[in-house]
Amino acid sequence: MNALPDPGEITNALSSDSFRACAQLITAIERATPGLTPVLQVLYRGGRGNRIIGITGPPGAGKSSLVNQLITHIRRLGKTVAILAIDPSSPFSGGAVLGDRLRMMQHSADTGVFIRSMASRGQLGGLTKAVGDALIVLDAMPWDYIIVETVGVGQNELDIMQLADTVVLVQTPMSGDDVQAAKAGINEIGDIYVVNKCDHNEADRTVRFLQSMITLGLHLQPEKIWTQPVVKTQSVSGLGIEDLANHIDHFFSVMKPDTPDMRLRRRHRIAYQTKGILRDILERRFHDSNDQQIENSIDAILTRQSDPYALVSELLAAQG
Amino acid sequence: MNALPDPGEITNALSSDSFRACAQLITAIERATPGLTPVLQVLYRGGRGNRIIGITGPPGAGKSSLVNQLITHIRRLGKTVAILAIDPSSPFSGGAVLGDRLRMMQHSADTGVFIRSMASRGQLGGLTKAVGDALIVLDAMPWDYIIVETVGVGQNELDIMQLADTVVLVQTPMSGDDVQAAKAGINEIGDIYVVNKCDHNEADRTVRFLQSMITLGLHLQPEKIWTQPVVKTQSVSGLGIEDLANHIDHFFSVMKPDTPDMRLRRRHRIAYQTKGILRDILERRFHDSNDQQIENSIDAILTRQSDPYALVSELLAAQG
Repeated sequence: MNALPDPGEITNALSSDSFRACAQLITAIERATPGLTPVLQVLYRGGRGNRIIGITGPPGAGKSSLVNQLITHIRRLGKTVAILAIDPSSPFSGGAVLGDRLRMMQHSADTGVFIRSMASRGQLGGLTKAVGDALIVLDAMPWDYIIVETVGVGQNELDIMQLADTVVLVQTPMSGDDVQAAKAGINEIGDIYVVNKCDHNEADRTVRFLQSMITLGLHLQPEKIWTQPVVKTQSVSGLGIEDLANHIDHFFSVMKPDTPDMRLRRRHRIAYQTKGILRDILERRFHDSNDQQIENSIDAILTRQSDPYALVSELLAAQG
Repeated sequence: MNALPDPGEITNALSSDSFRACAQLITAIERATPGLTPVLQVLYRGGRGNRIIGITGPPGAGKSSLVNQLITHIRRLGKTVAILAIDPSSPFSGGAVLGDRLRMMQHSADTGVFIRSMASRGQLGGLTKAVGDALIVLDAMPWDYIIVETVGVGQNELDIMQLADTVVLVQTPMSGDDVQAAKAGINEIGDIYVVNKCDHNEADRTVRFLQSMITLGLHLQPEKIWTQPVVKTQSVSGLGIEDLANHIDHFFSVMKPDTPDMRLRRRHRIAYQTKGILRDILERRFHDSNDQQIENSIDAILTRQSDPYALVSELLAAQG
């Protein structure tokens, strides 16, 4: 894919639910194809504000089968869903990560489901920006739900979750030690907690632990309009999936777009997304070996005829 | 400290070795006092290119006493040294971290030694930028050596080490498990390896492990002009400190400023420092609650009359 069609053409294709146009655009995002920015601007401004659900949790928590069950449930209700499966640790993309292969087999003939993997693009660190852009594309299409799924709970995963409207944090039943370790940051992320593999021994203990953390959080922020539920699931059998789906819908009925909480959240997301784009642009300028101007500036700094602050001014001016 | 003296005055004070001017400027850097940029620009352009030694390693490796011994050794040779002790994990600054109290007692009456702590300034994440700025100040003074010391080996510490000319990585004797864990990234950082507490059981085994990693690295990059030595020290007794100091001097005699390797390294540092300044400026704009323009832009994006890419253009233009 060398040249992009014009933005109007793309918008039409996406509105009419073209998987091909969508997949091509996401590939263009991954490859940083020139000419993408004006397209994304048009798509953003025409965006539908679809419900974006982030799903994360440690490896082995059973997220892939949970998402698979969620897709089945959503389709049974006659609704549509797009899934972005993100693997920040993997340099490969477009392949079958996160149980995609399974899901694709099960849902590939279904035009109400779109599944796409995205992975780290290596050094540039622009994955969050790329995911943000892919969400702009999906938001230009008439999906009832968009699911962004990441593996792990590292900084990259937490970053990506900032792009979602609501975050489902999937846990497995925890031992006492794990509970201690989890106390540190668990209340920072997660609008809905899932204890998966709920047939295991420690499941109820884990649920009680999460509930006590939530109660503590309520004391700290009594003005919050949303209280995180804890949902028990068993992703293999599908137990608790309907409950989870209902909690997700309940979240969106409480956190309506015009509530102060949701507005604040969306403002944060915009700031976050903007910073991601900025960082990406600036990183690219530095890594673009053709940029002789930067090389010359660095030469001048090396000989102390210039300085890093002067180069900052040049870089900012060059973008304007 | 509300207003800064003019850059010429500051330059004169620093050239004549004024500890007070130096300490005040570093405080101004920590507080992001307005008017600092032109001062730093003048200082940078008049910089001496002092030898900057980064010292890092896991907590408990004995870095503080090692640095203390190094100071004593450098002073015995009649040379001068400034120490920046960085604690990325601590939100407090100016206090006694990293064994400063001890060193200050021992060296406080000595005008050939300057010791300063810097710590994380919380949310803004501008520590690397602040350390870079402090190094600009120290480089405007006639130090024979500048030592930047960090605790730990997390991302922040690695980031800060990019500001040094040479990196001394301090290890303690490792168990077999530690060795396995260390294999991953150890060759990425460190121009000089130190195995401290070398009277311990596993010291020789650790030295052999490090040497084998270095040999492997040489196979991968045969054109390198500097081969990392492994130095055994015992920071309590001072054993091996002279050896370490000689290796540091040897590094600078091999990696002269006009060698391609050192030029490349300094170019990277300039690019790195510039990016830190850029990020800091942009972060500040976002967190500056008085900036009504950004708030208005976000409002427009919320209602989809604008988009994040348009805000990026505004931000970049506003800086120009």
